Amino acid sequence: IHSKLPDIGTTIFTRMSALAREHGAINLSQGFPDFPAPEGLRRALAHHALEGHNQYAPMIGEPALREQVAAQLQRFRGVTPDPVEEITIVPGATEGIFCAIMALVDRDDEVILLDPSYDSYEPAVRLAGGRAIHVPLIEDTFAVDWDHVSGALSSRTRMIVINSPHNPTGAVLSHSDLETLEELAELRDLLVVSDEVYEHLVFDGARHHSVLEYPALRSRSVTVYSFGKTYGVTGWKTGYCVAPPALTAELRKVHQFNCFVGVTPVQLALADFMAEDPDYPGTLPGFYQAKRDLLHRALANSRFRLRPSAGTYFQLLDYSDITDEPDHSLCERWTVEQGVASIPISIFYQAPPQQHYLRLCFAKQDEQLLRAAETLCRI
Amino acid sequence: IHSKLPDIGTTIFTRMSALAREHGAINLSQGFPDFPAPEGLRRALAHHALEGHNQYAPMIGEPALREQVAAQLQRFRGVTPDPVEEITIVPGATEGIFCAIMALVDRDDEVILLDPSYDSYEPAVRLAGGRAIHVPLIEDTFAVDWDHVSGALSSRTRMIVINSPHNPTGAVLSHSDLETLEELAELRDLLVVSDEVYEHLVFDGARHHSVLEYPALRSRSVTVYSFGKTYGVTGWKTGYCVAPPALTAELRKVHQFNCFVGVTPVQLALADFMAEDPDYPGTLPGFYQAKRDLLHRALANSRFRLRPSAGTYFQLLDYSDITDEPDHSLCERWTVEQGVASIPISIFYQAPPQQHYLRLCFAKQDEQLLRAAETLCRI
Ligand SMILES: CSCCC(=O)C(=O)O
Ligand SMILES: CSCCC(=O)C(=O)O
Repeated sequence: IHSKLPDIGTTIFTRMSALAREHGAINLSQGFPDFPAPEGLRRALAHHALEGHNQYAPMIGEPALREQVAAQLQRFRGVTPDPVEEITIVPGATEGIFCAIMALVDRDDEVILLDPSYDSYEPAVRLAGGRAIHVPLIEDTFAVDWDHVSGALSSRTRMIVINSPHNPTGAVLSHSDLETLEELAELRDLLVVSDEVYEHLVFDGARHHSVLEYPALRSRSVTVYSFGKTYGVTGWKTGYCVAPPALTAELRKVHQFNCFVGVTPVQLALADFMAEDPDYPGTLPGFYQAKRDLLHRALANSRFRLRPSAGTYFQLLDYSDITDEPDHSLCERWTVEQGVASIPISIFYQAPPQQHYLRLCFAKQDEQLLRAAETLCRI
Repeated sequence: IHSKLPDIGTTIFTRMSALAREHGAINLSQGFPDFPAPEGLRRALAHHALEGHNQYAPMIGEPALREQVAAQLQRFRGVTPDPVEEITIVPGATEGIFCAIMALVDRDDEVILLDPSYDSYEPAVRLAGGRAIHVPLIEDTFAVDWDHVSGALSSRTRMIVINSPHNPTGAVLSHSDLETLEELAELRDLLVVSDEVYEHLVFDGARHHSVLEYPALRSRSVTVYSFGKTYGVTGWKTGYCVAPPALTAELRKVHQFNCFVGVTPVQLALADFMAEDPDYPGTLPGFYQAKRDLLHRALANSRFRLRPSAGTYFQLLDYSDITDEPDHSLCERWTVEQGVASIPISIFYQAPPQQHYLRLCFAKQDEQLLRAAETLCRI
């Protein structure tokens, strides 16, 4: 068989979680909470499973959930997308991103990816027939080098994918980043896929800047969100896309023949919980910042240097004072030998720079974070 | 925006269900049961929602569910695929088919589709960069014309998509069809995607012939199944693919960057129910055949001619004794004016023949079927 993705193996998240399970390691690799989701949300799913219509949702998503999404975007972002023409419920943000890229990137189109970039973006671009052009974030700060981005544009550049708060680094884009992007996108007629799945996880009193808040940018963007991240149910695989009607129409053409719809009782449960507790996302920065700070304190006496984590539930550790070992081998070794699983960063680069980072997920019970930190302090 | 699928509108199933809702019509269009799923299954989902780990399943699917699938295939088909290397849980058969086509069809490859063909196949082929070659089934019998298929093969033909029991016609492939396909596929080195989502819905004492039962065919096939169809939970959007390890590896490369995984509590609930009631699929032929026969009796005095429905939960009505109106306009008009929604067949053809069919779904409560038939008898 001729492979269309010959150089692609199993995603690092699957491999590290499997290795962690196999060796009974504390799993700070794959990003998911190890504590229960809100009880009201789980009860709502139980209710709809037992009493509900367990058949196909409408292709664009349950109306009640799209209405709740519209209300939440109004509340948190001050924007009012149309729930029929501009909001599409998808079976996970990854599917939303895949459909957006598949629908909008054509043969030989170029797509700018900012490295380290989430590992699903490039395969989606390639399967769409396009070519990924990798521009690294600035070393150490993980800020975008907009001059570098500008220099990487060609007449074939069709799209740029951005991600803020940024996985795996925890960096967040500033107001000025979004203004620069808006200008550039207009000037060079670029489409934007904006992966904002960690939108509610921004710390230290800062706020998330969404492309939805920049009208000229919004008019050329598909913005992708995740209920899994916001409500702590990554296994429910439900997210949504916001895009102007013309882009939404193209996205849906792919979505309807790819997954068609997401899971009905899950969508109805999310709608119920959002209606009951519209402020819930507002509790997340405090909750996750406390976990980040706990981890910081617990690692204060370690030999790791901690990078700033301005958002997401990820923390980068710089281990360059400890060893020169490449991060992917170190990750595996420490999972097996130390019993703490993490994620290597170099694999998210086309051309990894000389740096030594591991990513820890701190969406874990405090006790797990403390146990992991105790081990890491002994290294 | 330049559309990659300029001629593609919203899928007929979505449009007809929406029209039925809007006009309060009896919805015999989109295929889904209007009665509750087994209580044990719904209880199992409620249990896993409340008590379970609502986080990511393993990328290839929950081990318990893959084990149950292996046991079911052993029981009903006498085959023993490996649950790790050959079975992949997918968020709906449609996603499985999309991933298989996306992974295995390359730029300018040709794919044979047998018309009337399910509406997701061709867009998937086109998005993969390939070209769909449409071969019509034989008029009236909806059998495969294998000589016609042979004649349509070229040096670029990479794949054939088959579907038995067949949606929308209710035809089923015979043992001799599968032998012919096996020979042809070997001779011409074809890959096969076998859509067997209605595998358990075969009537009149006949049995389903699966590509899995033909070793040489199985070695070059991705076979796709649906828990939604078998367990009456189309809104749970869960299915599985069976393929030899080399094809499975390619399928998973796409799946992991498309949807990544399906919904965890749904997978665990299905595994529980399958373990509790391994014979459940064996009850389906009797259950659905009774509905088909009820519909036949109720339409006996109508002006429609009923095509044989050997499998699936669909019944074709030939309305050529009533009107010459094209099926797509008739469908819409009768939904609005008569209050019965159905599916037109011509849209599943590249070149629709001169025929006049509507598809009715009989996975509906008897009372609904009788009410619909009463109306149809008055036409
Ligand atoms: C798709 S599984 C990985 C979850 C995640 O987004 C991460 O760990 O970065
Ligand atoms: C994808 S919704 C349609 C369900 C179905 O397979 C059908 O009605 O044929």
